[in-house]
Amino acid sequence: MTWTTLDHRLDSGILTVTLDRPDHLNAFTPTMADELEQTFTEVNDNDDVRAIIVTGAGRAFCAGMDLSADGNVFGLDETRTPTLADMDDLSSPDLRRIRDTGGRVTLAIHSCRKPVIAAINGAAVGIGATMTLAMDARLMSATARYGLVFGRLGITPEAASTWFLPRLVGMAKALDLVYSADILDAEATEAAGLANAVHPPDQLLDRARDLADRWTLGRSQVATALARQMLYRNAALQHPEDAHRVDSLAMFYTSTGDGAEGVAAFREKRSPDFKQQASGMPPFYDTWINGTTP
Amino acid sequence: MTWTTLDHRLDSGILTVTLDRPDHLNAFTPTMADELEQTFTEVNDNDDVRAIIVTGAGRAFCAGMDLSADGNVFGLDETRTPTLADMDDLSSPDLRRIRDTGGRVTLAIHSCRKPVIAAINGAAVGIGATMTLAMDARLMSATARYGLVFGRLGITPEAASTWFLPRLVGMAKALDLVYSADILDAEATEAAGLANAVHPPDQLLDRARDLADRWTLGRSQVATALARQMLYRNAALQHPEDAHRVDSLAMFYTSTGDGAEGVAAFREKRSPDFKQQASGMPPFYDTWINGTTP
Amino acid sequence: MTWTTLDHRLDSGILTVTLDRPDHLNAFTPTMADELEQTFTEVNDNDDVRAIIVTGAGRAFCAGMDLSADGNVFGLDETRTPTLADMDDLSSPDLRRIRDTGGRVTLAIHSCRKPVIAAINGAAVGIGATMTLAMDARLMSATARYGLVFGRLGITPEAASTWFLPRLVGMAKALDLVYSADILDAEATEAAGLANAVHPPDQLLDRARDLADRWTLGRSQVATALARQMLYRNAALQHPEDAHRVDSLAMFYTSTGDGAEGVAAFREKRSPDFKQQASGMPPFYDTWINGTTP
Repeated sequence: MTWTTLDHRLDSGILTVTLDRPDHLNAFTPTMADELEQTFTEVNDNDDVRAIIVTGAGRAFCAGMDLSADGNVFGLDETRTPTLADMDDLSSPDLRRIRDTGGRVTLAIHSCRKPVIAAINGAAVGIGATMTLAMDARLMSATARYGLVFGRLGITPEAASTWFLPRLVGMAKALDLVYSADILDAEATEAAGLANAVHPPDQLLDRARDLADRWTLGRSQVATALARQMLYRNAALQHPEDAHRVDSLAMFYTSTGDGAEGVAAFREKRSPDFKQQASGMPPFYDTWINGTTP
Repeated sequence: MTWTTLDHRLDSGILTVTLDRPDHLNAFTPTMADELEQTFTEVNDNDDVRAIIVTGAGRAFCAGMDLSADGNVFGLDETRTPTLADMDDLSSPDLRRIRDTGGRVTLAIHSCRKPVIAAINGAAVGIGATMTLAMDARLMSATARYGLVFGRLGITPEAASTWFLPRLVGMAKALDLVYSADILDAEATEAAGLANAVHPPDQLLDRARDLADRWTLGRSQVATALARQMLYRNAALQHPEDAHRVDSLAMFYTSTGDGAEGVAAFREKRSPDFKQQASGMPPFYDTWINGTTP
Repeated sequence: MTWTTLDHRLDSGILTVTLDRPDHLNAFTPTMADELEQTFTEVNDNDDVRAIIVTGAGRAFCAGMDLSADGNVFGLDETRTPTLADMDDLSSPDLRRIRDTGGRVTLAIHSCRKPVIAAINGAAVGIGATMTLAMDARLMSATARYGLVFGRLGITPEAASTWFLPRLVGMAKALDLVYSADILDAEATEAAGLANAVHPPDQLLDRARDLADRWTLGRSQVATALARQMLYRNAALQHPEDAHRVDSLAMFYTSTGDGAEGVAAFREKRSPDFKQQASGMPPFYDTWINGTTP
């Protein structure tokens, strides 16, 4: 695979994915959407990867959708008047040009089995901002900026950002951020609850790697993948009893797998040696992740 | 239409709705419920209105349900023993006297296509407090107070406040506020995460108008209406894939409408001139808002 | 009933439940799970109890699952490969050994009709930490610690904690706490949004009793029970209209019960004398709590 919009670098179990169109402030294109979707899908079966960091080449993180293309920059087919019913089967090739490209990326990030960290090195605007909402932490360079600017362009927030944003900052702040459509500096982004931390520019990637290590070194890949999905999915259920169904299966399969080693190591006062890998998830996993059952 | 409990004033696109029973501290009555429900329904088709501000006449915002009426102040028919199944068809005229009047108001606010700002000029108690939870911001006068006092009266929080409140302040604070049933001063209301800001009494309405302008000037009415509903509705869905279905349609219709002008203006470094108005929402809107499909 | 792992003490309407295996740091066992489940179920019909405080005997609150037992400490039957479909009927005796024991406890706490306060006197780790997430407040001794340590053992968070945790601290902090799996001191626990307050060790139980009194003295048992369930359940619904259905019934039944006394007392400027008790909930309650209807 040759990446045309991304740079991939794997070092000590951490995959750093760099949005790599620096001459265009890493502006988002349909090709970048395809490559990011592919990245976050393939990484699930690559057991050499513990965690993913996403950052940008040059001075920007991602300046949003590339508006320099001719014609309809959103790539949508204007001859249709699609309805909600048309969206039922998202796998239909016919829908390809109607589906929000940013959403294809954040849904792939959402389904990922590894922690994902945004290292926001510079301007993150539009899809450059919303793609990070599906990641598990947002670390900001002190010189970076963050903008949910859709309102200024007469369009709506995308990439399932209206699903993710209120989970991060609450509804009142989410409404204010979307209506105001301001570009925030790093300090304001952190104050809004959007950034986990702000770091000096030259330390940003090191701090992102530190966080990736803190989250994944000495951890079971399977237990981490399950915990990630349980937090996003169980929290969205109507009743904790449905979370309990998933919990019981996750505890059953981890406690008879890496958990048995974890408990043995705890008793023997040694570090655990976890063997299970995210390419081999428990039998209920695919049904759960892909299914309509809670 | 002659309003008997409200004052309506439209100035430069901002509709200020004043609860107008100052001799009764603007206490809430069934007539006020009807008039508020009508206000927030009719405003959807009034393209002269960009945003709505709700405030109170005189020294109170709204002192809660008017308890001065004789008999059963909640207007409920005591001869029934209604069940959950009875509530299935809320449009049944038979249910009119059983349905919570505050909820009729907050559901109308919830379905509104324009941003709604509470300018809480004085005591906001009971339904006077809960009606503001469905609004998009709560600005407090420094002398105002806020009380979810239902517990002191032996009744339960209403107006769908248990749906809205945890979205604003998290579950731990929501439980504490409801169990404690205290009346908070402006500072405590802000500290609880309920107020967006506290302003001097004589500046409250100006600051509310400033916020309404910041949220709506130079914005597409259609994109704003969609974004408002997407934040409240998409965030409540179980999976971001369902948000993505709505996102895709909202992006399709805005990008081929006001969004085309927004992108053109951005390229030409000029202010956009958005033409689409909230009375003409995209074809999927009504199905989405009224339907059971996510 | 003789309790073997708990101490029960009822004083002035407050039931203090003490996890009582101090020689084992109150480590959690299947028997403790049974006794806690029974406690939180039976208390619903005991009208002498206004509120419940949970604390630990000796220096710990609860050090997590008791790992000193021989064999499979989680008590799960390794010969099965259970699926999501197997979990459909949680009442099946056949599932007893597969269901997460912690979840049985938090689901019983969740269904409780009385406010529940955790008085975390010492280390709360694993299930000792997650069981408190289903309680309505967490008060910490200044010397206590709190740890969602599952990741270090190669297992997943349980007890429906992935349902409760993001409701309390938001998604970004929830992910960080679960991935990091750190043991936090009292100050860090409060800063994370997990503790409502930190108190000196010798004042912890008095402050917990103060809070229980503040929440329940002069309150209707029925209105409190309804409000508790409405906050947890209505907030999880997709649309406020479904909350409104429950609100309407709750307001109908309280306003014609204790609410009538509450309004009369308010008009007569006296303290209300509420008579309704949680053993006799309104007719819709069981259908609502146990049913699949929102």
